Amino acid sequence: MVKTYIFGHKSPDTDTITSSLVMANLEKELGNDDAVACRLGNLNKETEYVLNYLGIDAPQLIESVEDGANVILVDHNSPSESIDNLENTQILKVIDHHKIALNTSYPLFYRSEPVGCTETILFKLYKENNVEISKEIATLMLSAIISDTLLLKSPTTTVDDKKAVEKLAKIAEIDYNIYGLDMLKAGTDLSGFTIDEILALDAKQIDFKNIKSIVNQVNTASISDVLEMKDELERGIKKIIEKEDLDLFMLLITDIVNSNSQVIVLGESASLVEKAYNVKLEDNTALLEGVVSRKKQVVPIMTENA
Amino acid sequence: MVKTYIFGHKSPDTDTITSSLVMANLEKELGNDDAVACRLGNLNKETEYVLNYLGIDAPQLIESVEDGANVILVDHNSPSESIDNLENTQILKVIDHHKIALNTSYPLFYRSEPVGCTETILFKLYKENNVEISKEIATLMLSAIISDTLLLKSPTTTVDDKKAVEKLAKIAEIDYNIYGLDMLKAGTDLSGFTIDEILALDAKQIDFKNIKSIVNQVNTASISDVLEMKDELERGIKKIIEKEDLDLFMLLITDIVNSNSQVIVLGESASLVEKAYNVKLEDNTALLEGVVSRKKQVVPIMTENA
Repeated sequence: MVKTYIFGHKSPDTDTITSSLVMANLEKELGNDDAVACRLGNLNKETEYVLNYLGIDAPQLIESVEDGANVILVDHNSPSESIDNLENTQILKVIDHHKIALNTSYPLFYRSEPVGCTETILFKLYKENNVEISKEIATLMLSAIISDTLLLKSPTTTVDDKKAVEKLAKIAEIDYNIYGLDMLKAGTDLSGFTIDEILALDAKQIDFKNIKSIVNQVNTASISDVLEMKDELERGIKKIIEKEDLDLFMLLITDIVNSNSQVIVLGESASLVEKAYNVKLEDNTALLEGVVSRKKQVVPIMTENA
Repeated sequence: MVKTYIFGHKSPDTDTITSSLVMANLEKELGNDDAVACRLGNLNKETEYVLNYLGIDAPQLIESVEDGANVILVDHNSPSESIDNLENTQILKVIDHHKIALNTSYPLFYRSEPVGCTETILFKLYKENNVEISKEIATLMLSAIISDTLLLKSPTTTVDDKKAVEKLAKIAEIDYNIYGLDMLKAGTDLSGFTIDEILALDAKQIDFKNIKSIVNQVNTASISDVLEMKDELERGIKKIIEKEDLDLFMLLITDIVNSNSQVIVLGESASLVEKAYNVKLEDNTALLEGVVSRKKQVVPIMTENA
């Protein structure tokens, strides 16, 4: 049988990792015995916390798949965030909650909704297909929704995400406020990471019109702790700007307790951040009040002002 | 309130027209009172037969919508087949069964499945949302699935389409084989159409790699009847090739009873058809045995050989 590789985006986060596991389980329940959960990069500490909590293994690490293989994309659809040889695969399904950046030459199963988290859609797919959600699956789904919505506080949060969390917390038998804060805090632990690793943890290449940019986001319970590394971070960012020939690099340091982001900005187009948020960068940094969502509060505003 | 315009592709067929009506009804049932079913062109005779059978009005004819309007796309997603100012609208949802040809700058509800007909997906959406399917809605859905699958005989037909037809025929209280053949035959009536109208009835612009093409499909119960107009059709095709600067025009004359297509081919790249189907064009035409589906039996084969 031809294998079906299921994976999320590069620089995987909790939604990407858990969605590959949860989708692989759904495929198996629906009779696709050759579905394999995979990942395209190392786990972050938040996701490690989740898998350790459940005592389960991470999806298999891959870089590419054999030409002609079947794949299912979760939590992404952009080829630039996917495996390198995506154009030589057969994409069977996409389950995602991002803008549409994929073109195909054939029809496929494509399920996207403007909700906070891919797992909220997978929660619906389990119900539509009458597949039982185990305690383990519920915990995976719940963890991802808490992660993507910062405990339902991000402006990306929808009614569907909230409903799913309430129902999943019951199945998982978890107090999601306590579990969620522990999980988010585990994700803010940057010890053991090199500067280069921190700058790649949740980095997305996003072009604001013609401005070639990377926007990276690091969660923290204390912005000032992260700013202690500011000089080293800036040196690392400058290297990336040169290597990738970027016009802009934004590092969002997001305070998960108070829901703000301190942003470090470098690159020729740095003033775009000042224009977009009506702030003054001092020493390459500014506080963006209330900004926690790259998707809702960075991409559209930066694109509009570019 | 901001209106939500719901429409299918240009050169509308039965799936496109009925899907706009059926989706508008679903939106209203779900509380979106400002949903309006629309169409981007004239009805074909098959669709006229369906609406006359039910005694209902066609969707509202539009060419564009006001900038900033909300839209829902059914039975298409390609901007080239949609309203002219699509990029200035907010696409709320897409319900479709074609390849992905749309890119967006924002997440949206996107539901596509590789099934024979958009209405098969809408049938699922009604069930998922616990919205009752009336006799009228069932007849609309049923008509579209029969149309797109040529009475479940096209290779695009899936198990889901068959299941939907069985269930919908019961709700509609219709013998779908009898009704379906009558409906398909009504669609083959070309009287009253000018040559230019026939050549635009179900024309799709499709580029096979770099080969700029239009593939038009006309259903018939008698290929020889249509071939009586061959000289006039060829004159019309030549005008279109010149006007649109095409490399290729294929007119598929599809025999709905015997499931074959006679193809008339003009343009500089006409030999591509000979290569793709291993046939010899004589006097610009050839019989393509067993070919009835543009999506499954023309687009991939022509693209592969281009």
